[in-house]
Amino acid sequence: MAGKLYGVGLGPGDPDLMTRKAHRLIASAKVVAYPTLAGADSFARSIAADAIPATAREIVMDVPMTTDRAPAQAAYDQGAVEIAMALDDGQDVVCLCEGDPFFYGSFMYLFARLSQRYEVEVVPGVTSITTCAARAGLPLAARNERLTVLPGPLPEKELRTRIEGAESVAIMKVGRHLSKIRGVIDALGFTDQAVYVERASLPDEVVCPLVNAPEKAPYFSMILLTKGADPWL
Amino acid sequence: MAGKLYGVGLGPGDPDLMTRKAHRLIASAKVVAYPTLAGADSFARSIAADAIPATAREIVMDVPMTTDRAPAQAAYDQGAVEIAMALDDGQDVVCLCEGDPFFYGSFMYLFARLSQRYEVEVVPGVTSITTCAARAGLPLAARNERLTVLPGPLPEKELRTRIEGAESVAIMKVGRHLSKIRGVIDALGFTDQAVYVERASLPDEVVCPLVNAPEKAPYFSMILLTKGADPWL
Repeated sequence: MAGKLYGVGLGPGDPDLMTRKAHRLIASAKVVAYPTLAGADSFARSIAADAIPATAREIVMDVPMTTDRAPAQAAYDQGAVEIAMALDDGQDVVCLCEGDPFFYGSFMYLFARLSQRYEVEVVPGVTSITTCAARAGLPLAARNERLTVLPGPLPEKELRTRIEGAESVAIMKVGRHLSKIRGVIDALGFTDQAVYVERASLPDEVVCPLVNAPEKAPYFSMILLTKGADPWL
Repeated sequence: MAGKLYGVGLGPGDPDLMTRKAHRLIASAKVVAYPTLAGADSFARSIAADAIPATAREIVMDVPMTTDRAPAQAAYDQGAVEIAMALDDGQDVVCLCEGDPFFYGSFMYLFARLSQRYEVEVVPGVTSITTCAARAGLPLAARNERLTVLPGPLPEKELRTRIEGAESVAIMKVGRHLSKIRGVIDALGFTDQAVYVERASLPDEVVCPLVNAPEKAPYFSMILLTKGADPWL
């Protein structure tokens, strides 16, 4: 009988924000799998590190950071082959995924490749958007308010249109797009309501008004705009 | 010295999807607080039940379900007074909140009333949107895709406009708005891509295509539209 594949969300970074289910699955895993980006240490693995048994086998997918899709596809193709071999051997495989697997998570690439052939369970995790809101003390959405999630790499014009028609906005993956996004928010006159959050829940977390954001933002950074929030019930 | 107020997200319903931090805070709490809706059992309390110490004092806020805001405001006003008394006594208070406190969560009403005067920590939780996506096997957003979160009570015309201009959409709080929302999705021709999820992660969970949704939906139900998802990297 084939093993079961788990796609496990690890939350935003603080291992304490892992769910109890994620922790239990990892702590009893015989095989874990996770991506590393361009040979760097795996952020997902670092979140789960204290829970991974020393005896667990680790399948590492080294995903290159290029705008060309083919090398990244090849890395997930190869990872899927290795994972399938373990599943065919009757072993369960626990895939580690920072944040939530289906919310901009890397696990969806493995899900697409393996879910037709194997039993898969996706374990949701705490996302960076609610973590950033918690750390910034900013309610995201109440009652009938709308929330729009926008990736920072979107073209300037589209960002502008989408922010203009929105209430609360979370802009993900700010990174090297910071100055473009800043320009859009400035032009719309929303800078006073914009908060910048970097590496939420980690020891080196940064939370500050957008005007005070550093010149260089890491990939795991976000801007929250909550012009619509009215928490007074 | 005054106590500290914790707003703790409990996740979507399965106690195993609570974070380790939430569980630890609840298990060591001397005072917990939570809302009940219109005298019914508290959903938040039921998620945390196994973790709440028998010796903990419980502050219950009975929030009436009316379209008039005043009675609900009064319930949170009264709850805030009771919580403030415990904090002034030097006791920490752990407020229980289903899902995530700042994502349509009831805790934001207490946060608005107490965060100026007391130390408050918000502990994010797994939201219903990523849980519904996990249970339905539907990635919400990948790469540069946008995600729009819409509350079901929005007027028909606004729902239509917002869904039309969106990629992935999560419609929250479907409940008694189901037939209105269905009409909008039908008119837009998106019914084939719409999935209905009710009480995600709970034993009586329902996941099905929107066409097979029951006539009557509970408050904790959601519709996912993921026309944009392309998980193949």
